[in-house]
Amino acid sequence: MSRFKLTIEYDGTKFVGWQRQINGLGVQQVLEEAVTAFCGETINAFAAGRTDTGVHALGQVAHIDIEKETDADTVRDALNYHMRPHRVVILKSESVSEDFHARFSAKERIYHYKIINRRSPLAIQMNRALWVSVLLDTDAMHEAAQVLVGKHDFTSFRAVACQADSPEKTLNALDVVREGETVIITARARSFLHHQVRNMVGTLKLVGEGKWTAKDVSDALAARDRSAAGMNVPPGGLYFQEVIY
Amino acid sequence: MSRFKLTIEYDGTKFVGWQRQINGLGVQQVLEEAVTAFCGETINAFAAGRTDTGVHALGQVAHIDIEKETDADTVRDALNYHMRPHRVVILKSESVSEDFHARFSAKERIYHYKIINRRSPLAIQMNRALWVSVLLDTDAMHEAAQVLVGKHDFTSFRAVACQADSPEKTLNALDVVREGETVIITARARSFLHHQVRNMVGTLKLVGEGKWTAKDVSDALAARDRSAAGMNVPPGGLYFQEVIY
Repeated sequence: MSRFKLTIEYDGTKFVGWQRQINGLGVQQVLEEAVTAFCGETINAFAAGRTDTGVHALGQVAHIDIEKETDADTVRDALNYHMRPHRVVILKSESVSEDFHARFSAKERIYHYKIINRRSPLAIQMNRALWVSVLLDTDAMHEAAQVLVGKHDFTSFRAVACQADSPEKTLNALDVVREGETVIITARARSFLHHQVRNMVGTLKLVGEGKWTAKDVSDALAARDRSAAGMNVPPGGLYFQEVIY
Repeated sequence: MSRFKLTIEYDGTKFVGWQRQINGLGVQQVLEEAVTAFCGETINAFAAGRTDTGVHALGQVAHIDIEKETDADTVRDALNYHMRPHRVVILKSESVSEDFHARFSAKERIYHYKIINRRSPLAIQMNRALWVSVLLDTDAMHEAAQVLVGKHDFTSFRAVACQADSPEKTLNALDVVREGETVIITARARSFLHHQVRNMVGTLKLVGEGKWTAKDVSDALAARDRSAAGMNVPPGGLYFQEVIY
């Protein structure tokens, strides 16, 4: 048996997310069926993060175990062949030892959220970014974001359906950077609660619009109440960018 | 009557191109119907360039004439409202005099063609770029591109269906730039023949793959024969970027 670490890109628009679901196609299913098509084996793919419906990935990581004698490059090319025409590709395939686990070995996960900040709606970037027509004060957003960095009880930014044992997480970084009309919010942590990134972005958006201050963000965090923080922004702007091991 | 100059972005994937067609939806039709929905007038929109099926625009320019008393910002916002959910947006609307003509007043048109040059196929960029898996020598491509710059008979790079009176055009610039796995080819000219940019890119691709030299490009140009040059690359990588007036 050989274990392979796969770095995966996907356009999440038409998927119900990473995980296999009854109500639609998950990225996991596309990958697992491609493995079966390649080597006849039925496997489970384990991912670093279970992205939601509509969320994209530029560097999701998963591992798979294959009995067939093969090598990393063949696995990459064969899976890319069999996953067509779905919008999922293996960017990189590496042979790893059996103690590597895509989820449990991860030291840090990096997400970014893309906002297009302009008067006109989106055409090319539809479902790839959030459109905000009011001019956002991104300096104020970045400053307010620093309130959330560190170890906190993130109950206010956690989906009601979140299944994590504890609402306590350590946010390593939360940066807001503007390049022209594009605003990128980057979040780094060992792990995140369900909807945490999108709920934090929705909260920072209130700051950018001038409706909230950094103090309001601090109060929302302290409230430990989901209804105290900003709304969950749409999934199309969210990209699972990288996993650090 | 007021004339408005509109700068337009669209995702060409689901359009049959700019022009109204019987066999599908053209961007022109979406725009003209939005004008009718806004002010009840039936108008003709004139564009700087008639992009083909699947070609995108970041800065197509068109002009329209409206009888109703209105202003440029209202036109932009109203058309953006009425064009939903089509992937077309007005980025900018400007009031211009009646001697402005989107097509005939244009001094230079700028197109860019995007190639993603990597081993793995495209997921996020599908229909937005051309995938080339063989490592392209972009320095050689840029050098060979200079053969095409200047005033030439571009018959070898002209679609058989091209309706231009003369095959003679002046290519102001043709640059090939690599940024990581992304290769951008930028073409500038007062006007282009039908399929000229995509045929030039297909020819430069042969150079990048090491199959052709700059001398071969020069010979293809001199042949004045469409079959002497490289293939027409797919439309999804082509963007109508800007019009200079």
